[in-house]
Amino acid sequence: MTKYRIEKDTMGNVEVPADKYWGAQTERSRNNFKIGPAGSMPLEVVYGFAYLKKAAAFTNCELGVLAEEKRDLIGQVCDEILAGKHDDQFPLVIWQTGSGTQSNMNCNEVIANRAHEIAGKVIGEGEKTIQPNDDVNKSQSSNDTFPTGMHIAAYKKIVETTIPGVEQLRDTLQAKSEAFKGVVKIGRTHLMDATPLTLGQEFSGYVAQLNFGLKALNNSLAHLSQLALGGTAVGTGLNTPAGYDVLVAKYIAEFTGLPFVTAENKFEALAAHDALVETHGALKQLAVSLNKIANDIRLMASGPRSGIGEIIIPANEPGSSIMPGKVNPTQAEAITMVCAQVMGNDVAVTVGGTQGHYELNVFKPMMAANVLQSAQLIGDASVSFDVNCAAGIEPNHGRITELVNNSLMLVTALNTKIGYYKAAEIANTAHANGTTLKEEAVRLGYVTPEQYDEWVKPEDMTGSLK
Amino acid sequence: MTKYRIEKDTMGNVEVPADKYWGAQTERSRNNFKIGPAGSMPLEVVYGFAYLKKAAAFTNCELGVLAEEKRDLIGQVCDEILAGKHDDQFPLVIWQTGSGTQSNMNCNEVIANRAHEIAGKVIGEGEKTIQPNDDVNKSQSSNDTFPTGMHIAAYKKIVETTIPGVEQLRDTLQAKSEAFKGVVKIGRTHLMDATPLTLGQEFSGYVAQLNFGLKALNNSLAHLSQLALGGTAVGTGLNTPAGYDVLVAKYIAEFTGLPFVTAENKFEALAAHDALVETHGALKQLAVSLNKIANDIRLMASGPRSGIGEIIIPANEPGSSIMPGKVNPTQAEAITMVCAQVMGNDVAVTVGGTQGHYELNVFKPMMAANVLQSAQLIGDASVSFDVNCAAGIEPNHGRITELVNNSLMLVTALNTKIGYYKAAEIANTAHANGTTLKEEAVRLGYVTPEQYDEWVKPEDMTGSLK
Amino acid sequence: MTKYRIEKDTMGNVEVPADKYWGAQTERSRNNFKIGPAGSMPLEVVYGFAYLKKAAAFTNCELGVLAEEKRDLIGQVCDEILAGKHDDQFPLVIWQTGSGTQSNMNCNEVIANRAHEIAGKVIGEGEKTIQPNDDVNKSQSSNDTFPTGMHIAAYKKIVETTIPGVEQLRDTLQAKSEAFKGVVKIGRTHLMDATPLTLGQEFSGYVAQLNFGLKALNNSLAHLSQLALGGTAVGTGLNTPAGYDVLVAKYIAEFTGLPFVTAENKFEALAAHDALVETHGALKQLAVSLNKIANDIRLMASGPRSGIGEIIIPANEPGSSIMPGKVNPTQAEAITMVCAQVMGNDVAVTVGGTQGHYELNVFKPMMAANVLQSAQLIGDASVSFDVNCAAGIEPNHGRITELVNNSLMLVTALNTKIGYYKAAEIANTAHANGTTLKEEAVRLGYVTPEQYDEWVKPEDMTGSLK
Amino acid sequence: MTKYRIEKDTMGNVEVPADKYWGAQTERSRNNFKIGPAGSMPLEVVYGFAYLKKAAAFTNCELGVLAEEKRDLIGQVCDEILAGKHDDQFPLVIWQTGSGTQSNMNCNEVIANRAHEIAGKVIGEGEKTIQPNDDVNKSQSSNDTFPTGMHIAAYKKIVETTIPGVEQLRDTLQAKSEAFKGVVKIGRTHLMDATPLTLGQEFSGYVAQLNFGLKALNNSLAHLSQLALGGTAVGTGLNTPAGYDVLVAKYIAEFTGLPFVTAENKFEALAAHDALVETHGALKQLAVSLNKIANDIRLMASGPRSGIGEIIIPANEPGSSIMPGKVNPTQAEAITMVCAQVMGNDVAVTVGGTQGHYELNVFKPMMAANVLQSAQLIGDASVSFDVNCAAGIEPNHGRITELVNNSLMLVTALNTKIGYYKAAEIANTAHANGTTLKEEAVRLGYVTPEQYDEWVKPEDMTGSLK
Repeated sequence: MTKYRIEKDTMGNVEVPADKYWGAQTERSRNNFKIGPAGSMPLEVVYGFAYLKKAAAFTNCELGVLAEEKRDLIGQVCDEILAGKHDDQFPLVIWQTGSGTQSNMNCNEVIANRAHEIAGKVIGEGEKTIQPNDDVNKSQSSNDTFPTGMHIAAYKKIVETTIPGVEQLRDTLQAKSEAFKGVVKIGRTHLMDATPLTLGQEFSGYVAQLNFGLKALNNSLAHLSQLALGGTAVGTGLNTPAGYDVLVAKYIAEFTGLPFVTAENKFEALAAHDALVETHGALKQLAVSLNKIANDIRLMASGPRSGIGEIIIPANEPGSSIMPGKVNPTQAEAITMVCAQVMGNDVAVTVGGTQGHYELNVFKPMMAANVLQSAQLIGDASVSFDVNCAAGIEPNHGRITELVNNSLMLVTALNTKIGYYKAAEIANTAHANGTTLKEEAVRLGYVTPEQYDEWVKPEDMTGSLK
Repeated sequence: MTKYRIEKDTMGNVEVPADKYWGAQTERSRNNFKIGPAGSMPLEVVYGFAYLKKAAAFTNCELGVLAEEKRDLIGQVCDEILAGKHDDQFPLVIWQTGSGTQSNMNCNEVIANRAHEIAGKVIGEGEKTIQPNDDVNKSQSSNDTFPTGMHIAAYKKIVETTIPGVEQLRDTLQAKSEAFKGVVKIGRTHLMDATPLTLGQEFSGYVAQLNFGLKALNNSLAHLSQLALGGTAVGTGLNTPAGYDVLVAKYIAEFTGLPFVTAENKFEALAAHDALVETHGALKQLAVSLNKIANDIRLMASGPRSGIGEIIIPANEPGSSIMPGKVNPTQAEAITMVCAQVMGNDVAVTVGGTQGHYELNVFKPMMAANVLQSAQLIGDASVSFDVNCAAGIEPNHGRITELVNNSLMLVTALNTKIGYYKAAEIANTAHANGTTLKEEAVRLGYVTPEQYDEWVKPEDMTGSLK
Repeated sequence: MTKYRIEKDTMGNVEVPADKYWGAQTERSRNNFKIGPAGSMPLEVVYGFAYLKKAAAFTNCELGVLAEEKRDLIGQVCDEILAGKHDDQFPLVIWQTGSGTQSNMNCNEVIANRAHEIAGKVIGEGEKTIQPNDDVNKSQSSNDTFPTGMHIAAYKKIVETTIPGVEQLRDTLQAKSEAFKGVVKIGRTHLMDATPLTLGQEFSGYVAQLNFGLKALNNSLAHLSQLALGGTAVGTGLNTPAGYDVLVAKYIAEFTGLPFVTAENKFEALAAHDALVETHGALKQLAVSLNKIANDIRLMASGPRSGIGEIIIPANEPGSSIMPGKVNPTQAEAITMVCAQVMGNDVAVTVGGTQGHYELNVFKPMMAANVLQSAQLIGDASVSFDVNCAAGIEPNHGRITELVNNSLMLVTALNTKIGYYKAAEIANTAHANGTTLKEEAVRLGYVTPEQYDEWVKPEDMTGSLK
Repeated sequence: MTKYRIEKDTMGNVEVPADKYWGAQTERSRNNFKIGPAGSMPLEVVYGFAYLKKAAAFTNCELGVLAEEKRDLIGQVCDEILAGKHDDQFPLVIWQTGSGTQSNMNCNEVIANRAHEIAGKVIGEGEKTIQPNDDVNKSQSSNDTFPTGMHIAAYKKIVETTIPGVEQLRDTLQAKSEAFKGVVKIGRTHLMDATPLTLGQEFSGYVAQLNFGLKALNNSLAHLSQLALGGTAVGTGLNTPAGYDVLVAKYIAEFTGLPFVTAENKFEALAAHDALVETHGALKQLAVSLNKIANDIRLMASGPRSGIGEIIIPANEPGSSIMPGKVNPTQAEAITMVCAQVMGNDVAVTVGGTQGHYELNVFKPMMAANVLQSAQLIGDASVSFDVNCAAGIEPNHGRITELVNNSLMLVTALNTKIGYYKAAEIANTAHANGTTLKEEAVRLGYVTPEQYDEWVKPEDMTGSLK
């Protein structure tokens, strides 16, 4: 049977499971917000809080408003949290107070009680060694800590998961683009046969897409690097010591190894989360690019006998529980599902972003959760797609050659020799008769067989742009 | 040089172009909202107003608060508006007051001035025969007229354009489904070859999709048929005579020939526009269905030589300015662009729908414009796709037969005869060796040639569900 | 250290953790799709599979293609799954094969191995008592099981969580509407003071919104009740015994107690998931309604001293970590975050719905996960909002009376007595002078004090519509 | 009666209105795509074409493949188009071929026929002086011209309309921020009373939001400045003279005065339109910011007597057709409707962006139209909001002072003096008793009256961040 201890806050006493570090406000939130699965607040946000609580303690100490022993106790617990030792102490959900106040208090309470324990005391007995509000939360408010925590979480996720994942896929596609630069194939526009290009050129377009997307994502990081901490309740920095905002950002930068700075305008940093909107916009752009790439690859791999079949993708699993021998573009399916999710998440983030009122936007946890999910999924799916699909793509040379040589669109090479209308006549006649371009070109008297062979070379049609 | 006359409202005098019927408030709105092209407020909304202003006049007269001569003058101008004689008198934009107040006043002013003229007077001279506020707008507010006008406009558009358009396409696809019921072709799942079905079965799925969409759209009409009129400013019906709301809806139903009724809750009808959200949700569902159908058709039509090429679609225009002989699935492109737009419009309508405050939603013109655009585009695009593409679709029998007979997936027919694992072995071996299923099935000793021919018949694999 | 056993599939051997029931294909999927947190595939879908696997076993047995002992073993394991005994046996993610093939195989494998164990054998030793493909998956394909499983899951969630949750809130709002029917307050349009209504009328609009939303959601259930099972790989029902599709749906209806039927068109049921699009559209409509309601309530509760303050909402937790005594509309914040998420999810479902190709839509797991999340969140958040906020709402009578009596908009009551222009003059003068309407009305000579008191009664202005 | 002449293309003869310059392909498109209102293709795209057709003629001439006389004729017609002389010659709709092929041909045909006329010939008689395909379209394809035209159009719109419009509003808000820096007011978080800040600080947050948005929009221009021209049909540059792509971009830069360059990867530039996705993402971010700002302003302006009433906004029009004296935040309504539209358009652009296949994205006209609409609406609405609302905003000093002085949240100033719990007790007691903070603070014995006056100064609570 669960045992309980009594914790209290400004509203009175609350029974809390005795084996947990959290306190009264966390427990109230557990009871008041039974929405979806427990613990949905991303741990990344909790870790963001751990960085900032430690940084605040160091800053408060340096500025003379917190004792060194308190600083060290707080710092020690934060390090434990960051080491993953207290993951089960953060049971709250995304769908709580829109400022994330209760997750802030969850951190304050866990740190205070764990510090009490480290200090050799028994939790729930005696004056708390460290006060959750007066010490752990000193010079802070939920309103500036939560956005700080979510910026830290999002920035880290993007530079540690999203960007490396996308770059890994980009590098593979770049290598494939070079490897395939001699593979001349039919081009397709409107899904219809068009003039030839190389498979390498096709892949170079994918590389360019991802490079643009990475650039856009990097562009968004400057805004994300600005931290609200120091704005406290409404952006004025009430109850913070002089110099606090700049110094606390410096500590966070030091602890995380990332280029965080204090926000140039704290009112914007609390009342609007356009930084998340901006960053998610770039994630959505990457989703758009990845969707195009994955679609192309599964179309080119379609078959094996009744599709396009120009490339061969790895067979990673049996493709069907009923149709033997079937191999499906499953990685393309996983990543395009991710892309659809990211497009949806973008709307959630956008809607949340519009709805700040006065000094506070109260869609913070939802916005943070969506940015973190999208950033994770794009990074993971890029790696999965890379390792299990892209890296193993090989041209199906026979099929590629067959399709490009059959194509009526090679006639375009004759446009500059005999004019558009005669070229069209050749193509149309070959199409109607089921014959080859060369047969009709010669039969119609527009070119000699020698001219045809000289003028119509697929490989020559791919070359004006390297 | 434009000549002006002076019109006035509660704020004072305004110069108005002398050749226009509108008055002071319309002119103020023109000057205050120079956002996007002039006259963007859909004429369908204006016509909706014409119906309701006429109905209000008749109701007010019947209930004893408007003279018969005034009723008749108002009714006559409304009939002129509905006949399209005053389309150039409504210059306002969507992006005005969110209640559409100024479009309501535009109608009131035009009706009043034109009535003055009909009454033999000179506009701008003498007491107005008909007062825009006290007569034309009697027993009304912008807040109940605009939602009424937009419900009338949307309902009409859907029953006159959207539903008939989609039904026309559905009927063609149904006829094709029957015509193609004997055409056995390769099925494809994951874009990969799968077991066979008939082209008729494939098309029957499209028909089913559109039938479900039409049903959903019809389901939404009940909410849309409820009219706010009679709620006046905040939903209480202040300043309306007893029985007004029911009677005015009855007149609107009579004038439009559509089953409009008074809203069961006027507070909902002013403060929320969930009826538009609901209807647009159904339009979006149709967009989803149409997108799938159009995508399939262009994939099946791809080629002519290096694609799938299972069906032939009409060639309506030269396909390329540079590649002669190219025919593109242009109708599929037009309708899928429409689908993307409708998906976007759905978000605009949704966002607008969330933002009512207290007694009024002030995203009315934007919501109305999006519903009307989506309804128009889906109807028009369905007809265009039908006439210029679907009606002309023909199977490419030779290609269909070639692809189905080549397929390794016919091996599935052997699952129930020799088990899944042996069947898979046959398919995998044929795939590896580039041979036929029959060759490998016999060579591996799992079936005799006679058994193979008896057991593996594509046409027998399409039949358990008609 | 984890111990492993060898499992095999058509591609060869795989090492699987020895203490798990799953087999080769589940393990391959775990390795091939490391995207986001493990086990993200909703358990509700697994339970949907348990219903359908049991129903398939019973149907196969009744139709003579499965032995009774196998039926009973399969049924027994399915019952265990439904009892929650094997929740840790389903480790796969949403972001896998888009047909959900691997979750189908996960179920097949777990059922087969657990059945082997129940039969007294050792897993991994000897011929499997029950074959995952030939027995558990008999007369099925991933392509018809997954959509069946997701329809079962979504339907159950909606009738068990969403609808009761919304109805609970609706009933509370209905009770409040009746309780507040005598509370006359200022109306507001454009966020500006308008003519009065009762607080009960305001709440009746919320009730109407939720009733319309519930109706729309119920309308969508007919489509959702149609099950794909029996379509097998491409919709033709290949390898199913005659009568299978109807009977298996009957068994599912019996086991779940819900009115499931076989899909009228199996091709639609595999290739399109418009049923999910339709249902999610209705969920989104509810989100739109809930957002409006929650926004109104927090605006009316704003203060305590510098806001509107017309209603008092329960204080469930300390509102601020820095500002003492502050009570925030936290339930409104939680539910509006849910609404934003649902709006985003709607786009994800919509995008997924558009992208079926040929015989299969391969966005199934993503679409299912979003529908389930939205259905859960709306149901849970409605209950949370009801219990922790709506049920405790009380009018702040003093403040309500103060605001309505101060309002200049009461002048509207004079429109029908002295005309719009004179009424406007009174209001404008009182506004300019900071005086009361009565003072100016009398001073301007338009009414006597007695007339004013008789004509301008807020309570009389709320009454024409009950 | 309309008179017709015969025009022909590769498919045969077409009757064209005799008074129009367009030819066969334009006329076919008019007939084949009757979707929505005629002429919906934005004129901005047509002008983009005019720039590029002229640039192509100059480049072709300079590279020796077009005669000078032809160059000059083409250039002259392009100049006429840019002068707006042929606006009625472009009747096509957005919902056409997804490559915009027919709008490319519309330009080619109009230029050719008008050039024929300038050359003193009669249209429809004799060999065309200038051939639409061989001359006007020389070294081009629809596939590289349309994206070039839409990049030119979008870039121009953004730098000429969007950015200046937003900057104008930003400058006004900046000036207001400075003007209001001494106006101490109540802060609000969760819509509830919070600690004070200045009205100037509040406005500084708006300025910061717009500055971030402008920065994001500017960041996106680099991608948009890359032009596809020179890629021709599939990106290879087939049929273009050496050096063509760089030179033609240089001419376009010269003619437009904007920093256009040739795309670094032509395959990306044809097959993907992530540049539009990126730019629209930034437009959407601005919409998010503008929505927040406009919402705040209308909330602060709400009243006049029963709302917040802290600021006064200009009265531009009578606010109600039924309620005299009412002034509404109509500019806020217009701009928030624009914001909702832009959020919807973002989804349309995103969906279109995902659906390129192989060498071509065929959602070009839809994507271009949405970007252009959003860019126009944001620019126009910003100016309208600025001129008609923001520029006239004035603080309602009396009301602001009343609200800040009443606030219980001033107690926060005592946190650092007497601790969080005692401060909370003071606030809670004053709230319960309807008294002032000072009364209770003294009565409870926590401070002296003198201390209270010294410690609790609203103006001192706004100052730690300037």
